[in-house]
Amino acid sequence: MTDFKDIEGNCTKPDSETGHYTFNHTMIRIKDPKASLDFYTRVMGMKLVRKNDFPNAKFSLYFLGTFNEEETKDLPKDNEEKRGWVLNQKSILELTHNWGTENDPNFTYHDGNKEPRGFGHIAFKVPDVLKACERFEKLGVTFQKKPSDGTMKSIAFIKDPDGYWIEIV
Amino acid sequence: MTDFKDIEGNCTKPDSETGHYTFNHTMIRIKDPKASLDFYTRVMGMKLVRKNDFPNAKFSLYFLGTFNEEETKDLPKDNEEKRGWVLNQKSILELTHNWGTENDPNFTYHDGNKEPRGFGHIAFKVPDVLKACERFEKLGVTFQKKPSDGTMKSIAFIKDPDGYWIEIV
Repeated sequence: MTDFKDIEGNCTKPDSETGHYTFNHTMIRIKDPKASLDFYTRVMGMKLVRKNDFPNAKFSLYFLGTFNEEETKDLPKDNEEKRGWVLNQKSILELTHNWGTENDPNFTYHDGNKEPRGFGHIAFKVPDVLKACERFEKLGVTFQKKPSDGTMKSIAFIKDPDGYWIEIV
Repeated sequence: MTDFKDIEGNCTKPDSETGHYTFNHTMIRIKDPKASLDFYTRVMGMKLVRKNDFPNAKFSLYFLGTFNEEETKDLPKDNEEKRGWVLNQKSILELTHNWGTENDPNFTYHDGNKEPRGFGHIAFKVPDVLKACERFEKLGVTFQKKPSDGTMKSIAFIKDPDGYWIEIV
């Protein structure tokens, strides 16, 4: 492979201990699980593969991924076994819901793209950006950038129910 | 599969159009690419699979993933072909570097875990959390939570050079 040897900081001979490290998931906090689950499953086509409730600390975790039927047919029914299954996947989205935020009309999370900036976005690859964006428009999804906006016509940005940006590529 | 039919908002019959949508990457902004590339490649074992410079807008994008040799052997050499290859992967980390931030001693990005909160963390699955954490300690990595802290002994949180949290599971 191209190993970018000339780029400062890039280690091309990683420690063998890291050979089995896997980037498993990305966690964002959500205000209202009903809205976010609807969005990520119905609009974005993700599957909910695990839910974990923590009644004492009053929060729940939802784990989702973009899987086809084949890929989820070995998903265990037992919740602890699900944990192991989810850890063996890539591109998992973890949504954290602190109970009660959905009932506070003034509650919002920070999308990372206004000050103070940091986190930028998550991105979904779709077979056809224009077709996907027509579908999003029909479904009433909020756009940050339509394909026709700006110079980069081949990408779009939509927003999830909390306002987090999702790049469509 | 377990389809969580009873959970409000969860769509168990997604639109067939979303069948080929894939959660491809997560983007975070970084202050200093030399520090972040060193961290994500040497400490976390990621491979840099694409770099894209935008001289007019003065920023660069770095795309990394946790791949073994086998998985990257078909990575194209051509940068535009690399784009397509990266889009066909899962669990890609995109680092955005706005040129010059590394020279401002007071410049920081927001990790999402202090107010205003939103983004939480990215997570790496490792074969052995305790062993990985011993290694991180030897390498001088900053911990947010060591395995021995708190009640959840099986997980840890470390920080990347910008202070973003990384869960070790």
